[in-house]
Amino acid sequence: MNMRPNNREINQLRDITIETDYTKHPEGSVLITVGDTKVICNASIEDRVPPFMRGQGKGWITAEYAMLPRATDQRNIRESSKGKVSGRTMEIQRLIGRSLRAVVDLDKIGERTVWVDCDVVQADGGTRTASITGAFVAIVLAFGTLIEKKAIKEMPIRDYLAATSVGVMPNDTEILDLQYEEDSQAKVDMNIVMTGNGEFVEIQGTGEEATFSVTQLQTMLGLADHGLKEIFQKQKEALGKWAGYLKEKEA
Amino acid sequence: MNMRPNNREINQLRDITIETDYTKHPEGSVLITVGDTKVICNASIEDRVPPFMRGQGKGWITAEYAMLPRATDQRNIRESSKGKVSGRTMEIQRLIGRSLRAVVDLDKIGERTVWVDCDVVQADGGTRTASITGAFVAIVLAFGTLIEKKAIKEMPIRDYLAATSVGVMPNDTEILDLQYEEDSQAKVDMNIVMTGNGEFVEIQGTGEEATFSVTQLQTMLGLADHGLKEIFQKQKEALGKWAGYLKEKEA
Amino acid sequence: MNMRPNNREINQLRDITIETDYTKHPEGSVLITVGDTKVICNASIEDRVPPFMRGQGKGWITAEYAMLPRATDQRNIRESSKGKVSGRTMEIQRLIGRSLRAVVDLDKIGERTVWVDCDVVQADGGTRTASITGAFVAIVLAFGTLIEKKAIKEMPIRDYLAATSVGVMPNDTEILDLQYEEDSQAKVDMNIVMTGNGEFVEIQGTGEEATFSVTQLQTMLGLADHGLKEIFQKQKEALGKWAGYLKEKEA
Amino acid sequence: MNMRPNNREINQLRDITIETDYTKHPEGSVLITVGDTKVICNASIEDRVPPFMRGQGKGWITAEYAMLPRATDQRNIRESSKGKVSGRTMEIQRLIGRSLRAVVDLDKIGERTVWVDCDVVQADGGTRTASITGAFVAIVLAFGTLIEKKAIKEMPIRDYLAATSVGVMPNDTEILDLQYEEDSQAKVDMNIVMTGNGEFVEIQGTGEEATFSVTQLQTMLGLADHGLKEIFQKQKEALGKWAGYLKEKEA
Amino acid sequence: MNMRPNNREINQLRDITIETDYTKHPEGSVLITVGDTKVICNASIEDRVPPFMRGQGKGWITAEYAMLPRATDQRNIRESSKGKVSGRTMEIQRLIGRSLRAVVDLDKIGERTVWVDCDVVQADGGTRTASITGAFVAIVLAFGTLIEKKAIKEMPIRDYLAATSVGVMPNDTEILDLQYEEDSQAKVDMNIVMTGNGEFVEIQGTGEEATFSVTQLQTMLGLADHGLKEIFQKQKEALGKWAGYLKEKEA
Amino acid sequence: MNMRPNNREINQLRDITIETDYTKHPEGSVLITVGDTKVICNASIEDRVPPFMRGQGKGWITAEYAMLPRATDQRNIRESSKGKVSGRTMEIQRLIGRSLRAVVDLDKIGERTVWVDCDVVQADGGTRTASITGAFVAIVLAFGTLIEKKAIKEMPIRDYLAATSVGVMPNDTEILDLQYEEDSQAKVDMNIVMTGNGEFVEIQGTGEEATFSVTQLQTMLGLADHGLKEIFQKQKEALGKWAGYLKEKEA
Repeated sequence: MNMRPNNREINQLRDITIETDYTKHPEGSVLITVGDTKVICNASIEDRVPPFMRGQGKGWITAEYAMLPRATDQRNIRESSKGKVSGRTMEIQRLIGRSLRAVVDLDKIGERTVWVDCDVVQADGGTRTASITGAFVAIVLAFGTLIEKKAIKEMPIRDYLAATSVGVMPNDTEILDLQYEEDSQAKVDMNIVMTGNGEFVEIQGTGEEATFSVTQLQTMLGLADHGLKEIFQKQKEALGKWAGYLKEKEA
Repeated sequence: MNMRPNNREINQLRDITIETDYTKHPEGSVLITVGDTKVICNASIEDRVPPFMRGQGKGWITAEYAMLPRATDQRNIRESSKGKVSGRTMEIQRLIGRSLRAVVDLDKIGERTVWVDCDVVQADGGTRTASITGAFVAIVLAFGTLIEKKAIKEMPIRDYLAATSVGVMPNDTEILDLQYEEDSQAKVDMNIVMTGNGEFVEIQGTGEEATFSVTQLQTMLGLADHGLKEIFQKQKEALGKWAGYLKEKEA
Repeated sequence: MNMRPNNREINQLRDITIETDYTKHPEGSVLITVGDTKVICNASIEDRVPPFMRGQGKGWITAEYAMLPRATDQRNIRESSKGKVSGRTMEIQRLIGRSLRAVVDLDKIGERTVWVDCDVVQADGGTRTASITGAFVAIVLAFGTLIEKKAIKEMPIRDYLAATSVGVMPNDTEILDLQYEEDSQAKVDMNIVMTGNGEFVEIQGTGEEATFSVTQLQTMLGLADHGLKEIFQKQKEALGKWAGYLKEKEA
Repeated sequence: MNMRPNNREINQLRDITIETDYTKHPEGSVLITVGDTKVICNASIEDRVPPFMRGQGKGWITAEYAMLPRATDQRNIRESSKGKVSGRTMEIQRLIGRSLRAVVDLDKIGERTVWVDCDVVQADGGTRTASITGAFVAIVLAFGTLIEKKAIKEMPIRDYLAATSVGVMPNDTEILDLQYEEDSQAKVDMNIVMTGNGEFVEIQGTGEEATFSVTQLQTMLGLADHGLKEIFQKQKEALGKWAGYLKEKEA
Repeated sequence: MNMRPNNREINQLRDITIETDYTKHPEGSVLITVGDTKVICNASIEDRVPPFMRGQGKGWITAEYAMLPRATDQRNIRESSKGKVSGRTMEIQRLIGRSLRAVVDLDKIGERTVWVDCDVVQADGGTRTASITGAFVAIVLAFGTLIEKKAIKEMPIRDYLAATSVGVMPNDTEILDLQYEEDSQAKVDMNIVMTGNGEFVEIQGTGEEATFSVTQLQTMLGLADHGLKEIFQKQKEALGKWAGYLKEKEA
Repeated sequence: MNMRPNNREINQLRDITIETDYTKHPEGSVLITVGDTKVICNASIEDRVPPFMRGQGKGWITAEYAMLPRATDQRNIRESSKGKVSGRTMEIQRLIGRSLRAVVDLDKIGERTVWVDCDVVQADGGTRTASITGAFVAIVLAFGTLIEKKAIKEMPIRDYLAATSVGVMPNDTEILDLQYEEDSQAKVDMNIVMTGNGEFVEIQGTGEEATFSVTQLQTMLGLADHGLKEIFQKQKEALGKWAGYLKEKEA
């Protein structure tokens, strides 16, 4: 008996679309849609690095994350009005930046900073994992722009990178890619960031007023692995010609 | 000899589209496109008013405005990271809120606050006027939602409301609807907010290190009047059935 | 039948006095009194410009505005205690700075910043326009100090600059120079900044929950023009010998 | 051989004037001038107390202190622009409030807050002591307003209150009422707040990279006592009829 | 060949001591020492809950984390001076609070908030896991205080809770309980929070510019499990009589 | 009849211990205990001075003070969470820094900043005076570290420095070294900072809603002098070999 919203299977992702060149100014611009979750991921290249990295001949990647006030069911106060960024926002933007840095060869981009902005236009669960998946495409496009401008010679990416969520529902069922309705009930919520060749970049599993066993952990990791294979395929399609640059790397 | 970008005439607006129901959560949601300027205008209804207005039986409208960091050619630092809202942002959101309040009958919406969020996804000049034009459509849609929920009985709108910019170029030509390339060179920049029946709601004319004569003022007002008539037509089309509710009012 | 407070005519300004050399430290210091509105306008010269302007050989003018907590009928919380500057304050200080820059030849003052501080000691309406009128006198005095020190050769001012307010009362009468009692009732409030030769520098007309017609606009512009002629005369008297430096420029 | 600026004696105060009813809105308003130091002291009555004091039937006094940016020889950045109040400002406003509370019978003013704002228009040393001396007069006037409105029955003041500074110069001379030129050289700086009957309310003596002996302390206390007697006389004259209310108390 | 500092085995914890009743004011106070890492963990009981939880008859736990400025090799600027809490701090305090809530029965503590303050006196790696381990002891002691005061009837704790770190070194060795020298070189860093019966509460594994395989994950989980068994024993000893209250629960 | 808590005499200090080398990272680290008041005083050496002092060849000392949230009977909100430092904290850290600078020969430490962090672990009155007494020992140790590293040649300290409090109780008894229970009732509170040879560095005497006479002042100064002699002895013992370096100076 299937109880998931929209009759999804336990191991079924929501529909994913990745629209490239979404806005005109950024070096890489993507609108990623995962079910009803929509995030604009823009990658901007700045020709210098933060002070603590100057003179090392390598680059840096930093990410910022925000939601439009009415991306959610209830309107949220803007963080600019509150005058500070919430703990949740900081955690997410640190996660996105760290994940991207794990697959980018910072030595090959020169003293440049890549600013990745993930702005959630509409939220329905999984905004941080959609941000990582979309941001990866955006930075490949941005590096593509640098290659076309002959600012760098090769694609400084070691592998594909994507993320999804898994969780345990109150009835102890493990499921893949939680939408908001599921996320708000789940006992355990786990975000997995992986590379194209199946290595972990980040695992964050959390029981909120609950715990989980080793067996449940293994089941969740299996679901994530299954879902991420499909997501990497979507990224390849979206990247078009730039996917070839990554293929060469894999060879 | 026509010197405007895209061969526009002196009194010609850029292409305008107004997409309604752009996101699913807000009571009214619009994506307005004016040339390459794109703004998401969301109207959210909250069932209470700020403390200073409680117990008066009337409502309130407040507006917030922001740009995605890479809405512009150069990336801007987020105001949430800076921990404060800039003077420019404050000016714009005060202008949007004041303009909307001029055509809404606050006595007819009960003790409710309408939060209008104008988030610029892509900027190419005229973001504040596009915000006002789009926000007007969003609040009509939001009031439509309240009517459908039978929370209010009639459309609490006195008239259409839209805005455009006019300016004086360095060669002393007055032009309508400045895009960024023009805006950055103009000697004088003027924003006009008008109602459907041709009354002014707001005039803000500014010479930056320059001045303008009474004659130039008259010419600019004429150009604005011409452009706004076309914009009101676009709003009517976007509003669909809700335009009818406004028509009755005009009768 | 005259209904204005103090039996003022519709086109009559309040009494204006401009006391120069009000405090001893600033390069230019003025106390301007417009009816019961009193503003200290101090102009300070700093021998450098903000980072974004360095190396261009030209100067900059920046203005700040504040009210003493009890300048008004009810005490206001200090903005330093609140930890941020309000939107109203930012709008006003941006307006003052922009207006002054329109008549100053920034190329002729070298790499210097003029800080203009307008501090309202007592408020009774029209504090921003009084600030502009007083600040103009203060900067002329400050440039006079530079001339006396032989730091610059000529008065870097293109023309006189002053401001006043006009408005529309609930009974649709247009009036000049609104005091607080009038301002708080007015349907339309317009601030006009003009140069000595009758050019506009800034027009800001606002209907708060109201609108205004082209005819009303014309009437208000006429009242402002009438009032500003008298104000320019007051400035000339206050400037004493420095008025001569401006006269030469006019020749 | 007299070496003080303006040929002042070691135990001679600068000229002091106390102008009452300086602005029209506050319940008590004073401009105090001590030499070239000028401070506006406004006392505002609010008909409620802070949350932590509610329901006790007694009042509260709180003081705020600020300087106009160009009150000093070099322009200071506004604390509102910096977004926070400096340690120096906090120390001074805590001192003013504490001093005033020492002579006011808070049980006799009902659940009211007296806000005392000391705004330095021009600084030449001794701004904090001038603020205390002027603030005392301002609160007596404010309580006078309450008596005239029949909000309270008697003057809730136990005694006169005033302050002055003393110090030790590099040549080990002790002097009274330091002006800025002296203050900036002094080895030791001491502020004394006293009541009319010669009791101490506050003593703050500080050696900046220096120390002082018991003998020097005694000499400084003697100078302060001498100077304060003259200051109490100035306060009495400024208070006019309200001085009578204080006299009765002394009886 | 053993290469760890202090000749530690791969699966060997540093010395751990847990000193109870460390300061006199808190309901529960602990100094935990893990090698050279020293953290004061204080649990304070407040007899009310945050606004969003009022009226539900249950309690709340919130944690704060900070380091003394010179807890580390280089002095850090205080977060109070910077005026904001860093992303790292927020992540850690959210983690501590979430972990504690997983083993506390919030329904059994009434409408009370437990404030857990973890202040790092000296840091040598593993401050967040030491904080969780020490904070658990502190809250048990605090609940013990409530039991002694007869404010609650039974120990509202479902199980023991502790945390440790594991990681992968550049030579691909997996190790337990990283000290700073190791942590700063590790390719992968993982924090594990577990309950006494071996369930996970939180897993956070991170590759900084690196990735890890499923096999490495399994090895790290095994090391953590091994180390935590020893830590739970230390907690039991520290808890003294209160360990009995937890034992009963296990029965 | 002795009424002090713990049967202390009027002129009796609480027990004082000064533990050196309390933590391992700082150049000088001390835990001072005065009765139940415990403060960690760490002195950190930074090899540069603030911008306003560069190029003068001399050093600077700056102090920061904080309390753990539960150092007191009621938990205090962290200043980092409030986003600003309180007036009380600023006053105390300014006092500590100023006091230390009075006995240090800043010309002899080169362009270095000494950061002194006083963190109160447990508070029972007299935290600011304990901080000064402990901080003095910490900086001597830190300068000792510099001497051992041959970074400076001699101990740049002119004399011992310590502080204590005196006060007047409601029954007009003057007492030495107030603990919290006494401090909260005292009519007058006075902090005295002195050098080893009996010179004053700072006197801060305050009546909160009370005043004090010259006689009471003299009695309090006598008590402080008596107590400080004992405290200097404790410092000498704690300093061990470094006390010798100070002795030479006295010779």
